[in-house]
Amino acid sequence: MWRELAPVGRVRTGGYRRQPFTSAERETVAWFRQECAARDLTVEEDPYGNLVAWWRPEGAAGDAVLTGSHLDSVVEGGGYDGPLGVVSALAAVDALRERGHVPAVPLGIGVFVEEEGSRFGIACLGSRLATGSMSWESARELRDRDGVAFGDVVAGGARSTLVEGVGSFVELHVEQGRDLVHREVPVGVATMIWPHGRYRFDFRGEANHAGTTRMGDRRDPMLTFAGTALEAARIALETGDRATFGRLEVSPNGTNAVPERVTAWLDARAGSEEALRSVVSQIGSSASEQATGHGTSVDVTAESESPEVRFEEALTAEVSRRSDGGSWPAIATMAGHDAGVLSAAGIPTAMLFVRNPTGISHAPAEYAAPEDCLAGVEALADSLQRLTR
Amino acid sequence: MWRELAPVGRVRTGGYRRQPFTSAERETVAWFRQECAARDLTVEEDPYGNLVAWWRPEGAAGDAVLTGSHLDSVVEGGGYDGPLGVVSALAAVDALRERGHVPAVPLGIGVFVEEEGSRFGIACLGSRLATGSMSWESARELRDRDGVAFGDVVAGGARSTLVEGVGSFVELHVEQGRDLVHREVPVGVATMIWPHGRYRFDFRGEANHAGTTRMGDRRDPMLTFAGTALEAARIALETGDRATFGRLEVSPNGTNAVPERVTAWLDARAGSEEALRSVVSQIGSSASEQATGHGTSVDVTAESESPEVRFEEALTAEVSRRSDGGSWPAIATMAGHDAGVLSAAGIPTAMLFVRNPTGISHAPAEYAAPEDCLAGVEALADSLQRLTR
Repeated sequence: MWRELAPVGRVRTGGYRRQPFTSAERETVAWFRQECAARDLTVEEDPYGNLVAWWRPEGAAGDAVLTGSHLDSVVEGGGYDGPLGVVSALAAVDALRERGHVPAVPLGIGVFVEEEGSRFGIACLGSRLATGSMSWESARELRDRDGVAFGDVVAGGARSTLVEGVGSFVELHVEQGRDLVHREVPVGVATMIWPHGRYRFDFRGEANHAGTTRMGDRRDPMLTFAGTALEAARIALETGDRATFGRLEVSPNGTNAVPERVTAWLDARAGSEEALRSVVSQIGSSASEQATGHGTSVDVTAESESPEVRFEEALTAEVSRRSDGGSWPAIATMAGHDAGVLSAAGIPTAMLFVRNPTGISHAPAEYAAPEDCLAGVEALADSLQRLTR
Repeated sequence: MWRELAPVGRVRTGGYRRQPFTSAERETVAWFRQECAARDLTVEEDPYGNLVAWWRPEGAAGDAVLTGSHLDSVVEGGGYDGPLGVVSALAAVDALRERGHVPAVPLGIGVFVEEEGSRFGIACLGSRLATGSMSWESARELRDRDGVAFGDVVAGGARSTLVEGVGSFVELHVEQGRDLVHREVPVGVATMIWPHGRYRFDFRGEANHAGTTRMGDRRDPMLTFAGTALEAARIALETGDRATFGRLEVSPNGTNAVPERVTAWLDARAGSEEALRSVVSQIGSSASEQATGHGTSVDVTAESESPEVRFEEALTAEVSRRSDGGSWPAIATMAGHDAGVLSAAGIPTAMLFVRNPTGISHAPAEYAAPEDCLAGVEALADSLQRLTR
């Protein structure tokens, strides 16, 4: 399966560009449908492009168990974030069938759209719509960088019934750090997701000529941004939180013009909601102070905020059980996931992580060794077997 | 004339977008041709889109006198930089005819394309081609941000003969600072243009996940850029030079990704070539030092360097003569101009500046009061009358 999926949407740099509803991402979806057809799984699609492939043996009844992940990537992302959870789910179904296991309840493999928020700006857009935690009215007008609206690329409208009747969700994911490397185990279980938010910083100054305007006469918003970015990194290093300015828009963005406006997006995450509020407020205060010094201004807008997620304890304990009687270690994750959205919507949820030797994520160097992937599949199959007994 | 020209290419913000060979800029060229036709001036065009409108009275012979400027603007620029020199040249011709003056040598009004370098990246592209200081081979492959080549928008090929036979060039321009405001005079004469250059800084680090990657494990090129931008401003403030980072490209430019690459363009200018080398080298050293600290790297490439220009002394003295026997004050300019290119090509050149109360340039607040514009026209007409006697 991996061999077929690996080249889709991979660009010259080795990075992936599988933005939702682009041809590369649609190709991954076509691949998924083909794999499901080969396994006699029935694929259902909701009006937003989310998919669930159902294994419903005769007589299976009761609350369904859902696994799966997503197939889209960040711009120039790696090949494992998302797809590993979908491929592993298909492989786990194969393993269960080889073992002769027949689920007593329906077992589904979900593929949620726009998990990364790389096109329409809202992470976990598909699962938010599937669970009703975001309305169609607020989603349809989201636009990508070319001005295309989400409402233009999906049917939309009717409420999704895709996760109705789902009693638990288990998502497998490549690790996005080196916790499991240090622990020397191939698989771990997540206990919580750090709260995080995206904040738009609008720095405004005065456009001017880069040659004739004396340095002392300038109101240059680039300098206020620069000072804020350095302060954000310093503060987060000190507190152990995360603060990143990775996206920027400069206007007019000309070599010989002092900019009039710099818009920068802060991605901030912390171990608790209080810590998150504190780090964002410190960065905001530092930005305001520097703006005063530079004769510029800054406005901070929270574009999205995701609360802390604590995964369901009983389910997490179940998923962490190893076949040899031991248990997989518990780790925290600093990244958002569809699992977090389903959990917040009241569906008992757990997450499995597979070791990533580089620790690198959202970039081509993201990786999991084949033997670790197989350990992940086995851990997932074991969990699903117990949950669908 | 001003009333007709003012709305062309002006956008919502009040700024101008007259990029070369866009419809707005072409409209200004059509306007120029119309004004020339109304005055019986013969317009010649070279293969690169440069224009000269000739007034050749019967019997006029000998080295021609050229005036004029450009009609393109920076992105979101002001309405005076360029057009004031063209409008004033047309008005000066009107004034000379009212005075009954008949030039003894040909008198031309030039309009050079892409003076700002806002589309194809090279400032004074038109005058460089017209004087042969840049070759068609190196110009044809210059591309704009959409990938359109300069060779696709002009006929190109043959060498320009437009400025052959020109014995002197006088360019009138709006001031790009407040020197004349402090001196309380409407008009000044430039003695030199500061040397300046454009340098591309390629900062490279490691793309990574903005949530899961600990601050201490990052190699974030955005931080190296930020530190370099602040240092550049600090150094130039101290030395009295100019150093501006006004243009930036971030890759992948995603909110939740530590960038892999930040490319920033430095615009640097100084009072002498030695001072320019020194300020650029200090900024480069600071960038390298910071890159080492951040685990990133930086490469600096000089994209264009313009040497110091000293305008011709005899011509400048002639142009600075006032009708009342006094003389207009001499000032330096920190901005590049077509006059600098013609001067470097061996054509005796002088520049007149008109007071700009805001001192702001390359932005909508750029301005010259009507009475100062009229003083500029008179100073230009006086000069042209003496030079074409």
